[in-house]
Amino acid sequence: MQKNIIKIGIAGLGTVGAETFQYIQNHQAFLKSRTGKDLIVTAVSARDKQKYRHLHLNDVTWCDNPAEMALRDDVDLVIELMGGADGAAFDLIQNALSCGKPIITANKALISKHAQRIFEKVNADKIAFAFEASVAGGIPIIKTIREGFAGNKITSVYGILNGTCNYILTEMAQKNMPFATVLKDAQDKGYAEADPSFDIDGIDTAHKLSILSAIAFGHIPKLDEIEIQGIRAITDLDINYADQLGYSIKLLGIAEETTNGISQIVAPCMLPKTASLSSVHGVFNAVFIKGDYMGDSLSVGRGAGGKATTSAIIADLIDICRGHFIHPLGQITQVEAKTIFKPIHQRQGQYYIRLLVKDEIGVIAEISAVLRDHKISLKSIIQHYQTEKSDDTVPVVITTHETNYGDVRAALTALSSLPVVMKPPHMMHILDL
Amino acid sequence: MQKNIIKIGIAGLGTVGAETFQYIQNHQAFLKSRTGKDLIVTAVSARDKQKYRHLHLNDVTWCDNPAEMALRDDVDLVIELMGGADGAAFDLIQNALSCGKPIITANKALISKHAQRIFEKVNADKIAFAFEASVAGGIPIIKTIREGFAGNKITSVYGILNGTCNYILTEMAQKNMPFATVLKDAQDKGYAEADPSFDIDGIDTAHKLSILSAIAFGHIPKLDEIEIQGIRAITDLDINYADQLGYSIKLLGIAEETTNGISQIVAPCMLPKTASLSSVHGVFNAVFIKGDYMGDSLSVGRGAGGKATTSAIIADLIDICRGHFIHPLGQITQVEAKTIFKPIHQRQGQYYIRLLVKDEIGVIAEISAVLRDHKISLKSIIQHYQTEKSDDTVPVVITTHETNYGDVRAALTALSSLPVVMKPPHMMHILDL
Repeated sequence: MQKNIIKIGIAGLGTVGAETFQYIQNHQAFLKSRTGKDLIVTAVSARDKQKYRHLHLNDVTWCDNPAEMALRDDVDLVIELMGGADGAAFDLIQNALSCGKPIITANKALISKHAQRIFEKVNADKIAFAFEASVAGGIPIIKTIREGFAGNKITSVYGILNGTCNYILTEMAQKNMPFATVLKDAQDKGYAEADPSFDIDGIDTAHKLSILSAIAFGHIPKLDEIEIQGIRAITDLDINYADQLGYSIKLLGIAEETTNGISQIVAPCMLPKTASLSSVHGVFNAVFIKGDYMGDSLSVGRGAGGKATTSAIIADLIDICRGHFIHPLGQITQVEAKTIFKPIHQRQGQYYIRLLVKDEIGVIAEISAVLRDHKISLKSIIQHYQTEKSDDTVPVVITTHETNYGDVRAALTALSSLPVVMKPPHMMHILDL
Repeated sequence: MQKNIIKIGIAGLGTVGAETFQYIQNHQAFLKSRTGKDLIVTAVSARDKQKYRHLHLNDVTWCDNPAEMALRDDVDLVIELMGGADGAAFDLIQNALSCGKPIITANKALISKHAQRIFEKVNADKIAFAFEASVAGGIPIIKTIREGFAGNKITSVYGILNGTCNYILTEMAQKNMPFATVLKDAQDKGYAEADPSFDIDGIDTAHKLSILSAIAFGHIPKLDEIEIQGIRAITDLDINYADQLGYSIKLLGIAEETTNGISQIVAPCMLPKTASLSSVHGVFNAVFIKGDYMGDSLSVGRGAGGKATTSAIIADLIDICRGHFIHPLGQITQVEAKTIFKPIHQRQGQYYIRLLVKDEIGVIAEISAVLRDHKISLKSIIQHYQTEKSDDTVPVVITTHETNYGDVRAALTALSSLPVVMKPPHMMHILDL
């Protein structure tokens, strides 16, 4: 930016917004040493004015309507931290774009939904649109892929992108506790929301994956092209079998370039315990990337929280004030929309299937026949008789050789309808990272 | 850069130079899609023209004198891959700077020695001077610290920065083999040089640490302010004791902000096996960074080799062609030269000391008295009697509580002069990362 004084409007004063506001107020000299400019918050907007008494809002204009903030003469740059794919956040961004004002946002849902429109506008008008904070806050993964790995043809991206899920899976594995107990504990500690479905059903991971995939492979993010499976169905039985087989369980976002196009999946995966992603515990995020020149790369850091997210927002702010403009996808030429997404059912991989079946003679024969009919080659099939039975079901655990995902799904449907299969089967990807 | 065609001169056609040359020749459309420009290699320079027949040098000017390459009208940008802190590489860079031409280099020794002069010039004249390839090739760690973590006050940097050393230490630990055998094996495999001293004595790590520390803390790199200890003195005894105590051994470059200034050390360190750096094996590099906002962060990737280093060079090239200019230390204002380096002897830490002593009564008492006289508080002292003795010495292993590095060094000198101490003592830092 050309100006020597940059006037900033912040919309949203939740955990991240308040932290960002305070950061800018308390780092005047620091920011000037890095940008050569004076950065001042001139306007803020949030739901309830009474709620933010702990912030020094005296010299700042309070805007009841966040969208109008972008139109003010005393706002040069907008930081959007309200959230929500539409509504006020979208109106604010539309207004900022129409005025050609730089935007910093952490709003993955909005980007995931409206990227096409936004990217076209910012590319045409050369408006800075920065969203490092939208994925894995404390890891500058967008910059790393878009600039640090800019010379590479990326072949795959594997991310642990949701701290809540990783905390739950880590606790289940380390303390041998069931999903519901750990979820309750995570809610008590503030690591999980009262309504946790957005996290544990994989939606949040999918939003973030859509952005990483877009940058890695150069396409427009599209949520509906991602196959999404959450962690709700994982039981302590799965954790124990994974452990026995030498694997850990992680909810991964996976984007891979295949001969048929880009495949994008969010799903619980079994990884060898020796894989670097297996040692990423608790609320940490991590992204493992393969490229043709840099080879294998791993980045680990805090994914969420006020401070880690503020770190990403301020990095974007300094970049913009230093005049560092870049297309959201790192490209200069028009993004080609022709990337073909490989139908997920064609994906080749190894799979884990856990069934709860009636404890009676011939069950294994019946299951094996279904799998054979779906052309699924078995690597192992384990039936343990439980010593203390609470009912008359026993678990059967199957691992497959390299096989077709579509065939596995079809087999699961067929297995579900067998009278001996007592509960919906649970499936996970096995990755040899 | 303003021009639409960027003419590039490459000096040095070793592994990295040849890879970079071929990359640019083979990625014309790719580079144009990312920069909007045509990038062409117009001139090269290397020692022996006859040697490079496998490269397509037909349309490229061969320069016998690399320094003159920078002065040519058909060279807009210089990539320096010759190496050496002075001589031809320095002359080339001086010439490029005097013409105001952007420079990309992988030359850590040169930066480590001449940073003051170069940084002042490029800052005054706004010349792009990029050196991502000088540290941990496949990890864009300079960009990560300088831009991704730009909003943070960094408090510490811990790096596994030399693949040769990490390969040797990994093999010693995993295969229980002595240093000399593993070094020989590494040389046979091409992982270690015929003269390995630059790597195993910690000089290479120190060059890289000086650069990372400078960027993390905003000072001019100075090699002579780094305390350097290599891995030559590590024996299988140390590896075994570390294992027993629950630690792995890594050669680390450490830069820390303390109340008395920046402390910079290259030394073999004992890390808990559960620490994320402990799981970085073989030729991989890794950097662990703590900052006040982003918290803990880890980056892992390939540190060396033609392709990984080319990845870093091309990232710099794309950045420069996109017009991304940044001061080498990420600051706009003048770098203050007043950072006080804490004398290393004031460093507080825990230490491991291994002695080989005469197998006789009273030895432990004698050693303990020396340590007491140097105010060193012992955490543990272990003397194992060897079952199969090759001589009349036995190892004594000591770990200390938090203590003063200077006191430990003084104690080591005193211990060395005891008649019962048969070989120079070996000391390592213990880190609780």
